[in-house]
Amino acid sequence: MEQDQTPSEKQGHPPAQAILHEVRTAENSAAHLLPKLQSMKESNYHLTLLDVGAGSGTISVSFAKLIPNGHVTGVDLNPNILPRARAVAEMAGVKNIEFQQGNVYKLPFADETFDVTFCHQVLIHIGTPWDALREMLRVTKRGGIVAAREGDYESECVWPELPELCKFHKLMAGLMSAGGGTPTAGRQLLSWALKVGVERSQITLSYSTSSYHTPSDKKICSQGLCDQLRGGSLREKALKFGLGTENDLEEMAKAWEEWAKRDDASLAMLHGEILVQK
Amino acid sequence: MEQDQTPSEKQGHPPAQAILHEVRTAENSAAHLLPKLQSMKESNYHLTLLDVGAGSGTISVSFAKLIPNGHVTGVDLNPNILPRARAVAEMAGVKNIEFQQGNVYKLPFADETFDVTFCHQVLIHIGTPWDALREMLRVTKRGGIVAAREGDYESECVWPELPELCKFHKLMAGLMSAGGGTPTAGRQLLSWALKVGVERSQITLSYSTSSYHTPSDKKICSQGLCDQLRGGSLREKALKFGLGTENDLEEMAKAWEEWAKRDDASLAMLHGEILVQK
Repeated sequence: MEQDQTPSEKQGHPPAQAILHEVRTAENSAAHLLPKLQSMKESNYHLTLLDVGAGSGTISVSFAKLIPNGHVTGVDLNPNILPRARAVAEMAGVKNIEFQQGNVYKLPFADETFDVTFCHQVLIHIGTPWDALREMLRVTKRGGIVAAREGDYESECVWPELPELCKFHKLMAGLMSAGGGTPTAGRQLLSWALKVGVERSQITLSYSTSSYHTPSDKKICSQGLCDQLRGGSLREKALKFGLGTENDLEEMAKAWEEWAKRDDASLAMLHGEILVQK
Repeated sequence: MEQDQTPSEKQGHPPAQAILHEVRTAENSAAHLLPKLQSMKESNYHLTLLDVGAGSGTISVSFAKLIPNGHVTGVDLNPNILPRARAVAEMAGVKNIEFQQGNVYKLPFADETFDVTFCHQVLIHIGTPWDALREMLRVTKRGGIVAAREGDYESECVWPELPELCKFHKLMAGLMSAGGGTPTAGRQLLSWALKVGVERSQITLSYSTSSYHTPSDKKICSQGLCDQLRGGSLREKALKFGLGTENDLEEMAKAWEEWAKRDDASLAMLHGEILVQK
């Protein structure tokens, strides 16, 4: 799929829609896993961790820093994002990491390869998330951990409630569903783990939040969403599925620009989190 | 209003609808305030804290434990709950606390009385929450803190999505609105503080979650809601406002009983939180 890469992607620059994802770290997106990771590290100096759907690799890189004597593998379905992930690792001076192309339904690893297998905002986008969890369990060692964190898009709170932001919310939910995903992934995560035969007693469930409300947060968020509405894959899909006109998308982008300027603005969402003890 | 008390309330036992509230502590319901409280305590040994809408007093009592050389005052509009709050304090062996009747719109205290003024799930229920915030600011010393945490009911995530639980969600939102409250309080908290003239730079906004998913959590939650549906003030108001029939309420109670038995069940909600530096 090399021919699909833009010149900027070839140089390891982030595609527009990735900017918003690059604020993600293990600390803000995998906090539920960190105490367990710390205790595992104490008894196993050379932990191996797989980050599924690694994208730009910012979470993977922060995991690699947390286990400096261990090793992190990041996989993503989209090979075009891999140069950016490698550039992120290089800029951070992180060596104990590698990125490769991989499909969560058919991970390119033997059974029981990793101590920890993690994903963030992956299961929400796919048709049979329980099959992905089964595959993540397969590549995880006995005694290891499968961890997932998925947003619950229907819990999203935006203020002020500008009409175009409400339309944007519906657009995003529509796109997720049109792509076979589940906008209410966060609340269903536990049920998906139970569906593949994991005992309830092996699963720790928690909920956390992500939010944007400081001036810099709002700028990153607005810019990321405007880029997607004006030129990213979101725009392409919205037009393809007939979920909005070019004019609708431009009105939404303007509303996000207005939102970012307002003192009373915030955006928040619930995320479901599971830790599965294999 | 003594004549409205039930015999059990006179003995300081919780009314049915209070059971669900009594799992609340400063740790789980005011976590955003605790680091600030700790730093204030270091420079002021005798902090005074006002807990507005203290209810059964479990949050107030845990605040009192955190500032053993300070003093906590809990006020509630409903005088019938005060004996229970005093019993909770006595059972905990906490002495640096008092409870009294009080209206958040007209707090019975002089200007600049408290170092910290706090409320939890109060502003969501009232008609002009910004007036309550203005009053809380009035009784707070210069250099002190006003802190609030309010749920955003529209962010609530329940699983499994039994039809009667969806009806219950609508009933609760309807009751809140019928009573003059704001189901989307959490996302609006910041805007309310700005509305009374506080500068954005004086306000720290955050979001957190509450959730029920362990067997004991689910039992407490289901029992508390069933009690309210079968005999509490929720039932009374639902019937009064024509928001449900007796049969509807019984079906909802049965659904909560079924929910509590299911391994895949959870209930979660976003809360908005502000700290205002006066």
